[in-house]
Amino acid sequence: MTAPAPVPATPQGRFITFEGIDGSGKSTQARLLADDLGAQGTDVLLTREPGGSPGAEEIRSLLLTGDPDRWSAQTEILLFTAARRDHMEKTVLPALAAGRTVISDRFADSTRVYQGATRGDLRTLVDRLHDLMIGREADLTFVIDMDAATALRRGLARSSGEDRFEDMGLAFQQALRDGFLSLAQAATDRCIVIDGDRDPAVVAADIRSHL
Amino acid sequence: MTAPAPVPATPQGRFITFEGIDGSGKSTQARLLADDLGAQGTDVLLTREPGGSPGAEEIRSLLLTGDPDRWSAQTEILLFTAARRDHMEKTVLPALAAGRTVISDRFADSTRVYQGATRGDLRTLVDRLHDLMIGREADLTFVIDMDAATALRRGLARSSGEDRFEDMGLAFQQALRDGFLSLAQAATDRCIVIDGDRDPAVVAADIRSHL
Repeated sequence: MTAPAPVPATPQGRFITFEGIDGSGKSTQARLLADDLGAQGTDVLLTREPGGSPGAEEIRSLLLTGDPDRWSAQTEILLFTAARRDHMEKTVLPALAAGRTVISDRFADSTRVYQGATRGDLRTLVDRLHDLMIGREADLTFVIDMDAATALRRGLARSSGEDRFEDMGLAFQQALRDGFLSLAQAATDRCIVIDGDRDPAVVAADIRSHL
Repeated sequence: MTAPAPVPATPQGRFITFEGIDGSGKSTQARLLADDLGAQGTDVLLTREPGGSPGAEEIRSLLLTGDPDRWSAQTEILLFTAARRDHMEKTVLPALAAGRTVISDRFADSTRVYQGATRGDLRTLVDRLHDLMIGREADLTFVIDMDAATALRRGLARSSGEDRFEDMGLAFQQALRDGFLSLAQAATDRCIVIDGDRDPAVVAADIRSHL
Protein backbone atom coordinates (compact mmCIF):
# COMPACT_ATOMS: atom_id res chain seq x y z
CA MET A 1 0.00 0.00 0.00
CA THR A 2 1.20 3.44 -0.80
CA ALA A 3 0.02 6.62 0.79
CA PRO A 4 -2.28 8.71 -1.39
CA ALA A 5 -0.44 11.40 -3.31
CA PRO A 6 -0.67 14.69 -1.42
CA VAL A 7 -2.88 17.33 -2.92
CA PRO A 8 -0.44 19.80 -4.52
CA ALA A 9 -0.28 22.96 -2.44
CA THR A 10 -1.37 26.09 -4.29
CA PRO A 11 1.87 27.90 -5.05
CA GLN A 12 2.18 31.11 -3.08
CA GLY A 13 1.46 34.07 -5.35
CA ARG A 14 3.90 36.85 -6.09
CA PHE A 15 3.70 40.20 -4.30
CA ILE A 16 4.74 43.10 -6.57
CA THR A 17 4.77 46.72 -5.43
CA PHE A 18 5.10 50.01 -7.29
CA GLU A 19 6.80 52.90 -5.57
CA GLY A 20 7.83 56.42 -6.50
CA ILE A 21 6.92 60.06 -6.02
CA ASP A 22 3.48 61.35 -6.93
CA GLY A 23 3.27 62.12 -10.64
CA SER A 24 5.89 59.49 -11.51
CA GLY A 25 3.29 57.33 -13.26
CA LYS A 26 3.50 54.43 -10.81
CA SER A 27 -0.30 54.05 -10.51
CA THR A 28 -0.64 53.95 -14.29
CA GLN A 29 2.14 51.38 -14.54
CA ALA A 30 0.66 49.22 -11.77
CA ARG A 31 -2.62 49.14 -13.68
CA LEU A 32 -0.96 48.46 -17.03
CA LEU A 33 0.96 45.52 -15.55
CA ALA A 34 -2.19 44.15 -13.92
CA ASP A 35 -4.07 44.42 -17.24
CA ASP A 36 -1.22 42.84 -19.16
CA LEU A 37 -0.77 39.89 -16.80
CA GLY A 38 -4.54 39.43 -16.56
CA ALA A 39 -4.86 39.33 -20.35
CA GLN A 40 -2.33 36.51 -20.34
CA GLY A 41 -4.38 34.48 -17.91
CA THR A 42 -2.63 35.32 -14.64
CA ASP A 43 -5.01 35.79 -11.70
CA VAL A 44 -4.10 39.31 -10.58
CA LEU A 45 -5.30 41.46 -7.71
CA LEU A 46 -4.58 45.19 -8.09
CA THR A 47 -4.63 47.10 -4.82
CA ARG A 48 -3.20 50.28 -3.27
CA GLU A 49 -1.97 51.88 -0.08
CA PRO A 50 -2.89 53.53 2.13
CA GLY A 51 -6.12 51.58 1.89
CA GLY A 52 -6.84 48.42 -0.04
CA SER A 53 -9.29 46.93 2.48
CA PRO A 54 -12.45 48.43 4.00
CA GLY A 55 -10.83 49.04 7.39
CA ALA A 56 -7.63 50.43 5.88
CA GLU A 57 -9.70 52.80 3.73
CA GLU A 58 -11.31 54.13 6.92
CA ILE A 59 -7.84 54.76 8.36
CA ARG A 60 -6.77 56.32 5.04
CA SER A 61 -9.48 58.91 5.36
CA LEU A 62 -8.16 59.86 8.83
CA LEU A 63 -4.71 60.33 7.29
CA LEU A 64 -5.56 62.12 4.07
CA THR A 65 -8.56 64.31 4.90
CA GLY A 66 -9.03 67.01 7.52
CA ASP A 67 -6.21 69.15 8.88
CA PRO A 68 -3.03 67.26 7.98
CA ASP A 69 -1.13 68.87 10.85
CA ARG A 70 -3.31 67.25 13.46
CA TRP A 71 -1.10 64.14 13.50
CA SER A 72 2.51 64.05 14.59
CA ALA A 73 4.93 62.04 12.47
CA GLN A 74 4.87 59.23 15.05
CA THR A 75 1.07 59.02 15.19
CA GLU A 76 0.99 59.10 11.41
CA ILE A 77 3.44 56.18 11.24
CA LEU A 78 1.23 54.20 13.64
CA LEU A 79 -1.85 54.90 11.54
CA PHE A 80 -0.10 53.95 8.29
CA THR A 81 1.09 50.74 9.96
CA ALA A 82 -2.41 49.96 11.27
CA ALA A 83 -3.81 50.45 7.76
CA ARG A 84 -1.03 48.26 6.31
CA ARG A 85 -1.67 45.49 8.83
CA ASP A 86 -5.36 45.45 7.92
CA HIS A 87 -4.57 45.56 4.18
CA MET A 88 -2.18 42.62 4.55
CA GLU A 89 -4.56 40.50 6.63
CA LYS A 90 -7.72 41.14 4.67
CA THR A 91 -6.50 41.60 1.11
CA VAL A 92 -2.88 40.81 0.31
CA LEU A 93 -2.11 37.63 2.26
CA PRO A 94 -5.36 35.79 1.42
CA ALA A 95 -4.81 36.52 -2.29
CA LEU A 96 -1.19 35.36 -2.16
CA ALA A 97 -2.25 32.21 -0.29
CA ALA A 98 -4.73 31.51 -3.09
CA GLY A 99 -1.89 31.71 -5.60
CA ARG A 100 -2.87 35.10 -7.01
CA THR A 101 -0.38 37.75 -8.09
CA VAL A 102 -0.86 40.86 -5.97
CA ILE A 103 0.17 44.26 -7.37
CA SER A 104 0.08 47.13 -4.89
CA ASP A 105 0.33 50.80 -5.77
CA ARG A 106 2.59 51.82 -2.82
CA PHE A 107 3.54 49.71 0.17
CA ALA A 108 6.01 49.96 3.07
CA ASP A 109 8.73 51.77 1.08
CA SER A 110 6.48 54.82 0.78
CA THR A 111 6.27 55.10 4.57
CA ARG A 112 10.03 54.65 4.87
CA VAL A 113 10.78 57.33 2.28
CA TYR A 114 8.07 59.89 3.09
CA GLN A 115 8.78 59.82 6.84
CA GLY A 116 12.53 59.48 6.40
CA ALA A 117 12.65 62.47 4.05
CA THR A 118 11.10 64.63 6.75
CA ARG A 119 13.27 63.42 9.62
CA GLY A 120 16.04 60.87 9.26
CA ASP A 121 15.60 59.56 12.80
CA LEU A 122 12.07 58.45 11.96
CA ARG A 123 13.36 55.95 9.42
CA THR A 124 14.60 53.65 12.21
CA LEU A 125 11.23 53.88 13.92
CA VAL A 126 9.39 52.98 10.70
CA ASP A 127 11.65 49.96 10.21
CA ARG A 128 11.25 48.73 13.78
CA LEU A 129 7.49 49.09 13.61
CA HIS A 130 7.42 47.28 10.27
CA ASP A 131 9.46 44.39 11.67
CA LEU A 132 7.22 44.16 14.74
CA MET A 133 3.80 44.47 13.10
CA ILE A 134 4.10 43.64 9.38
CA GLY A 135 7.20 41.48 9.00
CA ARG A 136 6.99 40.99 5.27
CA GLU A 137 8.44 42.73 2.21
CA ALA A 138 7.31 42.66 -1.40
CA ASP A 139 8.86 39.98 -3.58
CA LEU A 140 9.54 42.55 -6.29
CA THR A 141 9.39 46.35 -6.20
CA PHE A 142 9.42 48.66 -9.19
CA VAL A 143 10.64 52.13 -8.25
CA ILE A 144 9.41 54.46 -10.97
CA ASP A 145 11.97 57.23 -11.15
CA MET A 146 11.18 60.66 -12.55
CA ASP A 147 12.58 64.17 -12.52
CA ALA A 148 11.03 65.81 -9.45
CA ALA A 149 9.89 69.00 -11.21
CA THR A 150 8.20 67.05 -14.01
CA ALA A 151 6.49 64.74 -11.54
CA LEU A 152 5.34 67.65 -9.41
CA ARG A 153 3.76 69.38 -12.42
CA ARG A 154 1.94 66.16 -13.35
CA GLY A 155 0.86 65.53 -9.78
CA LEU A 156 -0.51 69.02 -9.25
CA ALA A 157 -2.34 68.95 -12.59
CA ARG A 158 -4.50 66.03 -11.50
CA SER A 159 -4.51 66.71 -7.76
CA SER A 160 -7.66 65.53 -6.03
CA GLY A 161 -7.00 67.60 -2.96
CA GLU A 162 -6.39 64.39 -1.08
CA ASP A 163 -2.70 63.85 -1.72
CA ARG A 164 -1.48 66.40 0.72
CA PHE A 165 2.14 65.36 0.40
CA GLU A 166 2.10 66.87 -3.08
CA ASP A 167 1.61 70.29 -1.55
CA MET A 168 5.02 70.33 0.02
CA GLY A 169 6.95 71.68 -2.96
CA LEU A 170 9.87 70.88 -5.16
CA ALA A 171 12.63 70.55 -2.55
CA PHE A 172 10.57 67.94 -0.73
CA GLN A 173 9.84 66.08 -3.99
CA GLN A 174 13.56 65.99 -4.71
CA ALA A 175 14.29 64.65 -1.23
CA LEU A 176 11.64 61.96 -1.81
CA ARG A 177 13.12 61.02 -5.18
CA ASP A 178 16.57 60.72 -3.59
CA GLY A 179 15.01 58.65 -0.79
CA PHE A 180 13.45 56.15 -3.20
CA LEU A 181 16.70 55.85 -5.16
CA SER A 182 18.85 55.20 -2.10
CA LEU A 183 16.29 52.73 -0.75
CA ALA A 184 16.41 50.87 -4.07
CA GLN A 185 20.20 50.80 -3.92
CA ALA A 186 20.05 49.30 -0.42
CA ALA A 187 17.54 46.59 -1.44
CA THR A 188 18.73 45.45 -4.86
CA ASP A 189 17.44 41.93 -4.07
CA ARG A 190 13.89 43.10 -4.69
CA CYS A 191 13.99 46.65 -6.12
CA ILE A 192 14.30 47.59 -9.79
CA VAL A 193 14.55 51.27 -10.72
CA ILE A 194 12.61 52.13 -13.87
CA ASP A 195 13.06 55.38 -15.81
CA GLY A 196 9.53 56.76 -15.78
CA ASP A 197 10.22 59.77 -18.02
CA ARG A 198 9.29 57.96 -21.24
CA ASP A 199 6.11 57.08 -23.09
CA PRO A 200 3.93 54.99 -20.72
CA ALA A 201 3.84 52.07 -23.20
CA VAL A 202 7.64 52.06 -23.36
CA VAL A 203 7.86 52.13 -19.55
CA ALA A 204 5.33 49.28 -19.34
CA ALA A 205 7.34 47.16 -21.78
CA ASP A 206 10.48 47.81 -19.76
CA ILE A 207 8.71 46.66 -16.58
CA ARG A 208 7.28 43.62 -18.35
CA SER A 209 10.79 42.60 -19.48
CA HIS A 210 11.83 42.15 -15.84
CA LEU A 211 9.15 39.56 -15.07
CA MET B 1 28.98 90.23 39.26
CA THR B 2 26.79 87.23 39.82
CA ALA B 3 24.71 85.47 37.19
CA PRO B 4 20.99 86.17 37.48
CA ALA B 5 19.15 83.52 39.43
CA PRO B 6 17.60 81.00 37.07
CA VAL B 7 13.85 81.14 36.71
CA PRO B 8 12.57 78.21 38.79
CA ALA B 9 11.37 75.44 36.48
CA THR B 10 7.70 74.56 36.82
CA PRO B 11 7.64 71.25 38.69
CA GLN B 12 6.48 68.42 36.46
CA GLY B 13 2.90 67.47 37.30
CA ARG B 14 1.78 64.07 38.49
CA PHE B 15 0.21 61.56 36.11
CA ILE B 16 -2.45 59.43 37.82
CA THR B 17 -4.43 56.73 36.04
CA PHE B 18 -7.53 54.73 36.98
CA GLU B 19 -7.86 51.19 35.69
CA GLY B 20 -10.32 48.35 36.16
CA ILE B 21 -13.09 46.45 34.45
CA ASP B 22 -16.18 48.23 33.18
CA GLY B 23 -18.70 48.75 35.97
CA SER B 24 -15.98 48.88 38.64
CA GLY B 25 -16.62 52.54 39.29
CA LYS B 26 -13.23 53.77 38.05
CA SER B 27 -14.71 56.62 35.97
CA THR B 28 -16.70 57.84 38.98
CA GLN B 29 -13.62 57.64 41.19
CA ALA B 30 -11.45 59.46 38.65
CA ARG B 31 -13.97 62.29 38.61
CA LEU B 32 -14.34 62.37 42.41
CA LEU B 33 -10.57 62.62 42.83
CA ALA B 34 -10.35 65.37 40.21
CA ASP B 35 -13.14 67.30 41.96
CA ASP B 36 -11.56 66.80 45.37
CA LEU B 37 -8.08 67.90 44.33
CA GLY B 38 -9.52 70.79 42.35
CA ALA B 39 -11.51 71.99 45.37
CA GLN B 40 -8.24 72.09 47.30
CA GLY B 41 -6.60 74.31 44.72
CA THR B 42 -4.70 71.73 42.67
CA ASP B 43 -4.73 72.41 38.94
CA VAL B 44 -6.21 69.15 37.63
CA LEU B 45 -6.87 67.88 34.12
CA LEU B 46 -9.33 64.97 33.92
CA THR B 47 -9.07 62.96 30.71
CA ARG B 48 -9.84 59.47 29.38
CA GLU B 49 -8.76 56.78 26.96
CA PRO B 50 -9.27 55.80 24.28
CA GLY B 51 -9.62 59.44 23.31
CA GLY B 52 -8.69 62.51 25.31
CA SER B 53 -7.61 64.63 22.32
CA PRO B 54 -9.48 65.50 19.12
CA GLY B 55 -7.39 63.13 16.97
CA ALA B 56 -7.55 60.32 19.51
CA GLU B 57 -11.33 60.71 19.69
CA GLU B 58 -11.47 60.21 15.91
CA ILE B 59 -9.47 57.00 16.30
CA ARG B 60 -11.70 55.99 19.24
CA SER B 61 -14.72 56.09 16.98
CA LEU B 62 -12.98 53.70 14.55
CA LEU B 63 -12.39 51.32 17.46
CA LEU B 64 -15.69 51.48 19.29
CA THR B 65 -18.29 51.94 16.56
CA GLY B 66 -19.13 49.87 13.51
CA ASP B 67 -18.55 46.12 13.28
CA PRO B 68 -16.07 45.33 16.08
CA ASP B 69 -14.84 42.23 14.27
CA ARG B 70 -13.47 44.23 11.37
CA TRP B 71 -10.16 44.75 13.21
CA SER B 72 -7.74 41.99 14.16
CA ALA B 73 -6.18 42.14 17.60
CA GLN B 74 -2.93 43.44 16.09
CA THR B 75 -4.60 46.23 14.12
CA GLU B 76 -6.61 47.12 17.21
CA ILE B 77 -3.40 47.39 19.26
CA LEU B 78 -1.90 49.69 16.62
CA LEU B 79 -4.99 51.91 16.65
CA PHE B 80 -5.07 52.07 20.47
CA THR B 81 -1.38 52.99 20.44
CA ALA B 82 -1.92 55.66 17.77
CA ALA B 83 -4.72 57.16 19.87
CA ARG B 84 -2.52 57.01 22.99
CA ARG B 85 0.39 58.69 21.23
CA ASP B 86 -1.89 61.55 20.14
CA HIS B 87 -3.43 61.81 23.62
CA MET B 88 0.02 61.98 25.22
CA GLU B 89 1.37 64.59 22.79
CA LYS B 90 -1.64 66.86 22.67
CA THR B 91 -3.17 66.55 26.14
CA VAL B 92 -1.19 64.70 28.82
CA LEU B 93 2.41 65.81 28.33
CA PRO B 94 1.67 69.53 27.82
CA ALA B 95 -0.43 69.54 31.02
CA LEU B 96 2.27 67.72 33.02
CA ALA B 97 4.90 70.13 31.67
CA ALA B 98 2.75 73.02 32.91
CA GLY B 99 2.78 71.46 36.38
CA ARG B 100 -0.82 70.25 36.26
CA THR B 101 -2.00 66.97 37.78
CA VAL B 102 -3.37 64.73 35.04
CA ILE B 103 -5.96 62.07 35.93
CA SER B 104 -6.79 59.64 33.13
CA ASP B 105 -9.70 57.20 33.11
CA ARG B 106 -7.81 54.25 31.56
CA PHE B 107 -4.34 54.26 30.05
CA ALA B 108 -1.85 51.66 28.83
CA ASP B 109 -2.77 49.00 31.43
CA SER B 110 -6.19 48.63 29.82
CA THR B 111 -4.60 47.70 26.50
CA ARG B 112 -2.26 45.27 28.25
CA VAL B 113 -5.07 43.56 30.14
CA TYR B 114 -7.82 43.58 27.49
CA GLN B 115 -5.54 42.25 24.75
CA GLY B 116 -3.65 39.92 27.08
CA ALA B 117 -6.89 38.40 28.39
CA THR B 118 -7.83 37.40 24.85
CA ARG B 119 -4.45 36.00 23.84
CA GLY B 120 -1.44 35.83 26.13
CA ASP B 121 1.04 36.18 23.29
CA LEU B 122 -0.36 39.62 22.48
CA ARG B 123 0.80 40.97 25.82
CA THR B 124 4.42 40.97 24.67
CA LEU B 125 3.43 42.79 21.50
CA VAL B 126 1.55 45.46 23.48
CA ASP B 127 4.56 45.99 25.74
CA ARG B 128 7.03 46.25 22.86
CA LEU B 129 4.81 48.69 21.02
CA HIS B 130 4.38 50.74 24.20
CA ASP B 131 8.14 50.90 24.74
CA LEU B 132 8.73 51.91 21.11
CA MET B 133 5.97 54.49 20.68
CA ILE B 134 4.83 55.73 24.13
CA GLY B 135 7.72 55.07 26.51
CA ARG B 136 6.09 56.45 29.62
CA GLU B 137 4.04 54.97 32.47
CA ALA B 138 1.72 56.67 34.92
CA ASP B 139 3.29 57.88 38.16
CA LEU B 140 0.46 56.33 40.15
CA THR B 141 -2.26 53.88 39.07
CA PHE B 142 -5.38 53.03 41.04
CA VAL B 143 -6.75 49.63 40.06
CA ILE B 144 -10.38 49.61 41.15
CA ASP B 145 -11.15 45.98 41.94
CA MET B 146 -14.66 44.59 41.89
CA ASP B 147 -16.46 41.25 41.73
CA ALA B 148 -16.83 40.53 38.02
CA ALA B 149 -20.55 39.62 38.15
CA THR B 150 -21.40 42.78 40.08
CA ALA B 151 -19.38 44.94 37.72
CA LEU B 152 -20.95 43.30 34.69
CA ARG B 153 -24.48 43.99 35.97
CA ARG B 154 -23.58 47.63 36.59
CA GLY B 155 -21.86 47.98 33.26
CA LEU B 156 -24.75 46.49 31.29
CA ALA B 157 -27.28 48.61 33.17
CA ARG B 158 -25.76 51.83 31.86
CA SER B 159 -24.39 50.51 28.58
CA SER B 160 -24.21 53.12 25.84
CA GLY B 161 -23.79 50.51 23.14
CA GLU B 162 -20.28 51.80 22.63
CA ASP B 163 -18.37 49.72 25.16
CA ARG B 164 -18.37 46.55 23.14
CA PHE B 165 -15.98 44.78 25.48
CA GLU B 166 -18.81 44.62 27.99
CA ASP B 167 -20.71 42.32 25.67
CA MET B 168 -18.26 39.52 26.05
CA GLY B 169 -19.75 37.97 29.16
CA LEU B 170 -18.83 36.94 32.67
CA ALA B 171 -15.92 34.60 31.96
CA PHE B 172 -14.21 37.36 30.02
CA GLN B 173 -14.87 39.90 32.81
CA GLN B 174 -13.32 37.50 35.30
CA ALA B 175 -10.26 37.06 33.09
CA LEU B 176 -9.96 40.84 32.87
CA ARG B 177 -10.25 41.23 36.65
CA ASP B 178 -7.52 38.63 37.11
CA GLY B 179 -5.44 40.43 34.50
CA PHE B 180 -5.67 43.77 36.31
CA LEU B 181 -4.81 42.15 39.65
CA SER B 182 -1.76 40.34 38.34
CA LEU B 183 -0.60 43.46 36.51
CA ALA B 184 -0.90 45.41 39.78
CA GLN B 185 1.14 42.73 41.59
CA ALA B 186 3.86 43.03 38.94
CA ALA B 187 4.01 46.83 39.18
CA THR B 188 3.71 47.58 42.89
CA ASP B 189 5.94 50.64 42.44
CA ARG B 190 3.03 52.53 40.86
CA CYS B 191 -0.14 50.41 41.26
CA ILE B 192 -2.50 50.43 44.25
CA VAL B 193 -5.44 48.02 44.28
CA ILE B 194 -8.60 49.57 45.72
CA ASP B 195 -11.64 47.56 46.80
CA GLY B 196 -14.37 49.11 44.65
CA ASP B 197 -17.27 47.17 46.15
CA ARG B 198 -18.07 49.80 48.80
CA ASP B 199 -19.97 53.06 48.95
CA PRO B 200 -18.39 55.45 46.38
CA ALA B 201 -17.61 58.04 49.09
CA VAL B 202 -15.77 55.39 51.13
CA VAL B 203 -13.82 54.28 48.06
CA ALA B 204 -12.96 57.93 47.29
CA ALA B 205 -11.68 58.51 50.84
CA ASP B 206 -9.54 55.36 50.56
CA ILE B 207 -8.03 56.63 47.30
CA ARG B 208 -7.46 60.09 48.78
CA SER B 209 -5.56 58.55 51.71
CA HIS B 210 -2.92 57.24 49.31
CA LEU B 211 -2.02 60.67 47.95
